Amino acid sequence: MGPGPSNVAPSVLKAMAMPLVGHLDPVFIKMMEEIKTMLRAVFQTQNLMTFPVSGTGSAGMEFCFVNLIEPGDEVLIGVNGVFGTRMCDVAERCGAKVTKVEAPWGRIIEAQQIADALKESRPKLVAIVHAETSTGAWTPVEEISRLAHDAGALLLLDTVTSLAGCPVKIDEWQVDAVYSGTQKCLSCPPGLSPVSLSPRAMEAATRRKTKVQSWYLDVNMLAAYWGQERVYHHTAPISMNYALHEALRLVLEEGLENRWRRHERNHLALKSGLEATGLVLAGQEGHRLWPLNAVQVPNGVDEAVVRKKLLNDFNIEIGAGLGPLKGKIWRVGLMGETSSLPNVKAFLSALGQILNESGRKTNAEATSAAAAA
Amino acid sequence: MGPGPSNVAPSVLKAMAMPLVGHLDPVFIKMMEEIKTMLRAVFQTQNLMTFPVSGTGSAGMEFCFVNLIEPGDEVLIGVNGVFGTRMCDVAERCGAKVTKVEAPWGRIIEAQQIADALKESRPKLVAIVHAETSTGAWTPVEEISRLAHDAGALLLLDTVTSLAGCPVKIDEWQVDAVYSGTQKCLSCPPGLSPVSLSPRAMEAATRRKTKVQSWYLDVNMLAAYWGQERVYHHTAPISMNYALHEALRLVLEEGLENRWRRHERNHLALKSGLEATGLVLAGQEGHRLWPLNAVQVPNGVDEAVVRKKLLNDFNIEIGAGLGPLKGKIWRVGLMGETSSLPNVKAFLSALGQILNESGRKTNAEATSAAAAA
Repeated sequence: MGPGPSNVAPSVLKAMAMPLVGHLDPVFIKMMEEIKTMLRAVFQTQNLMTFPVSGTGSAGMEFCFVNLIEPGDEVLIGVNGVFGTRMCDVAERCGAKVTKVEAPWGRIIEAQQIADALKESRPKLVAIVHAETSTGAWTPVEEISRLAHDAGALLLLDTVTSLAGCPVKIDEWQVDAVYSGTQKCLSCPPGLSPVSLSPRAMEAATRRKTKVQSWYLDVNMLAAYWGQERVYHHTAPISMNYALHEALRLVLEEGLENRWRRHERNHLALKSGLEATGLVLAGQEGHRLWPLNAVQVPNGVDEAVVRKKLLNDFNIEIGAGLGPLKGKIWRVGLMGETSSLPNVKAFLSALGQILNESGRKTNAEATSAAAAA
Repeated sequence: MGPGPSNVAPSVLKAMAMPLVGHLDPVFIKMMEEIKTMLRAVFQTQNLMTFPVSGTGSAGMEFCFVNLIEPGDEVLIGVNGVFGTRMCDVAERCGAKVTKVEAPWGRIIEAQQIADALKESRPKLVAIVHAETSTGAWTPVEEISRLAHDAGALLLLDTVTSLAGCPVKIDEWQVDAVYSGTQKCLSCPPGLSPVSLSPRAMEAATRRKTKVQSWYLDVNMLAAYWGQERVYHHTAPISMNYALHEALRLVLEEGLENRWRRHERNHLALKSGLEATGLVLAGQEGHRLWPLNAVQVPNGVDEAVVRKKLLNDFNIEIGAGLGPLKGKIWRVGLMGETSSLPNVKAFLSALGQILNESGRKTNAEATSAAAAA
């Protein structure tokens, strides 16, 4: 129940254990096609260039920037947590001139902020994090997309924690470049990064004046490998693709809408359960993610001790706060297979026991201190 | 029996199917330490910075170049196949000034060629491919290493197809940067790239004037993630690391020397078997790899038809020739688990049947054509 990797379905684990075939085997090539088709369904896009990058979510982020950015290009990046901050670093390493649009960690990037920033710059690319895994903030995309396109920019979206856990509609929202990870709401082990580029983004990538600085992530070569030409580029991680194939099949079997509703239901169950014991979710009202729940650490509680007890005594992993939220929040993932009512109940019960126990200890210490005095 | 992925041991497949733990779980962190220790044993090095990059072998190649090269740096690259050619492309994308030392595909890079080239340039880095997967050429390293270091350069080595299949001695040979892949002689699925940097290479990487152009592959951050600080960088591919852990355990259980001898034995068995049927290995006498065997396609034989029959009728995959060797060789992998006498015999028997049959057909056609005429 941390911020990922989430639990993995037995059939996905079983797929990982299947014997290897070659990466040019007809069986594997058929599987590559099916993965692309299923990924398009999950991203809700018709983009031809939709496939899993052979690396983790951060490789997917880098894939998007290295292909779309050339030295000197301007980019506008929404920064309200770890992953917006990371985007700036990645973009600068591509030689981009970065303008940051910042919000306090835990809050969303408001469309008005983007509108204001676009009055002062003409970026090639506007990049935002749909679902900030470090804070649980859920930034709406549609209005920002309209603003970006009106300004002649491409829109890049991080959906690492949102894909298959809450609505992600790449074509409807006119997103030009998007990346995700396998180990969150897709409930597949980490190791691949599903990405999708719109025809407009592909045009930008193919009309570059300079070579893409990363050979490994160059979409021009990857398009020939994952496309009909099958030009050898690298050896795709076979077993990871077996796993992703099965994980996507399970997502579509459940149905995207059903899956979103399940994530919403369990998020609300967690929220109610916490409130019943006097705890609250951190973050901005109306913009809290379903898959990633930031729980406020009560005053006087050592959050690290609680996390350690959860792991060692109850076999439940949750995540710590990062950056300015370190020590202030716990991050409770309800992603993919992990998003279930039994998990919510087990977590609430374990957390309640730990906090009660430490409360009793504190009271006992206070009493004994008072007695001694 | 292609040029990789090789077959994977049942216990490695089983490891892939184990339930996920978090990437910061104490159990996984212990596993990371054990993987580093075992990789050092397999690379025969004491290098602290020895770990698996979260991508395939090509990501490992890029890892080495992006960390060691800054724009304008000179590099000398031995090119005698696909992977030397790829090195040049990767290095140029880092802004390197590349000097190529070329040999015909199938032949090795001779130390004398490097010596001659070093008279005309002062490279920061000399890079060669130990085991050219595209040709089967096995280039000796020691003399080239001495020449590179005498010229004040670092030595970079591609051991994708040699590691754990024939001697690789990183410290004894004074290699400064090395990368490999998991899906060859380590017999682990593809998806990780074991790498190692010498203290001298680490110094070059940390004393750079410019930021490493790849965020995902920046060794300065990866050292903090894979080192004692455990600073979150990306989510390591958990299941792939389970698999690598078990694969390395099996390698060390067999013993490196024993494993090398097994690869040698089966290579020689294949060679004898081929010769008994009038076929020969391509490549340079005395410099043929044990794990990757380039077999000369007999005159008048359509190599693609033979490969297809091997796959469809005998369930045996072998690889085609690439570049100038397309249509001229088959590439037969005897790597890791795949390197066994039963496999050699099955391949020889199947190949014999197919060639005999097509020989009979050709004869029959000739007879019938003669009859018709």
